[in-house]
Amino acid sequence: MTDFFDDLCIDDTYDLGAHTFSRDEILRFAEKYDPQPFHLSEEAAAETHYGRVIASGWHTASVFMQRFVATLKASEERARADGKTPARFGPSPGFEKLRWIKPVYPGDTLSYSQKVTGKTESRSRPEWGIVHSDMLAHNQDGELVFSFKAIVFVERRGS
Amino acid sequence: MTDFFDDLCIDDTYDLGAHTFSRDEILRFAEKYDPQPFHLSEEAAAETHYGRVIASGWHTASVFMQRFVATLKASEERARADGKTPARFGPSPGFEKLRWIKPVYPGDTLSYSQKVTGKTESRSRPEWGIVHSDMLAHNQDGELVFSFKAIVFVERRGS
Repeated sequence: MTDFFDDLCIDDTYDLGAHTFSRDEILRFAEKYDPQPFHLSEEAAAETHYGRVIASGWHTASVFMQRFVATLKASEERARADGKTPARFGPSPGFEKLRWIKPVYPGDTLSYSQKVTGKTESRSRPEWGIVHSDMLAHNQDGELVFSFKAIVFVERRGS
Repeated sequence: MTDFFDDLCIDDTYDLGAHTFSRDEILRFAEKYDPQPFHLSEEAAAETHYGRVIASGWHTASVFMQRFVATLKASEERARADGKTPARFGPSPGFEKLRWIKPVYPGDTLSYSQKVTGKTESRSRPEWGIVHSDMLAHNQDGELVFSFKAIVFVERRGS
């Protein structure tokens, strides 16, 4: 995670950790940001084509970010404990192709991961490289439920 | 908003309403889902390249959903009050090209909107059409700060 651009390899995969979605957390996120019947209560969800409560897709996405930041912080701390300087990450300009592939139900545990798919040197900012990644979430049955293609600026070694 | 697929026109724009991002709300979202220094406190943000607190991009996106659902509900209620049956919307399979274009600061008011950019008939599901839209957010200075390209299934008339 805190490798410099130059040290990252295509197909490297980083484990971003797991998160179990409680019913309470799903309902609280939905009340605030996505109050559709299939996110709000079992009674309301029963009358929709989902049949039961599922997490808001934006909740699944926000928890990705929680896992990404937590993993980055832990990795930075490990690097510092080893006397190394962790690589800096720049802001993300956005991403491509976000997909909600399968519903996330209360009690489901999603394992998030990052797979490096490409690297581009930045001409305009030579101290940074652009890392292309697939961000993924699999449920407890190993099914891919969520993915998107991210672009992140990562510091180059010796900059 | 609750028009049937057949009645929607390319370039139609729907106002999804505005939202003012309070500092408290920005910090609370970030503590839970995106605890990076430039989202957590003015003191921590001052030491980053942003210089001050900005909203998490996932917060800006989640508030889009809040505005979208609220607008849809209000529109459905108006249609029913007029004795009309509102068109149904299907689940979104995902989206393309999300961009965080400019930072969102505490006190900023974002105006969200949806612009129809394309329509596709669904062969596999003849009772639904696929509507392609640009989802946009402009700040109080009229600057575009956030956008993505969405795909939504919308019911066809007479289905």
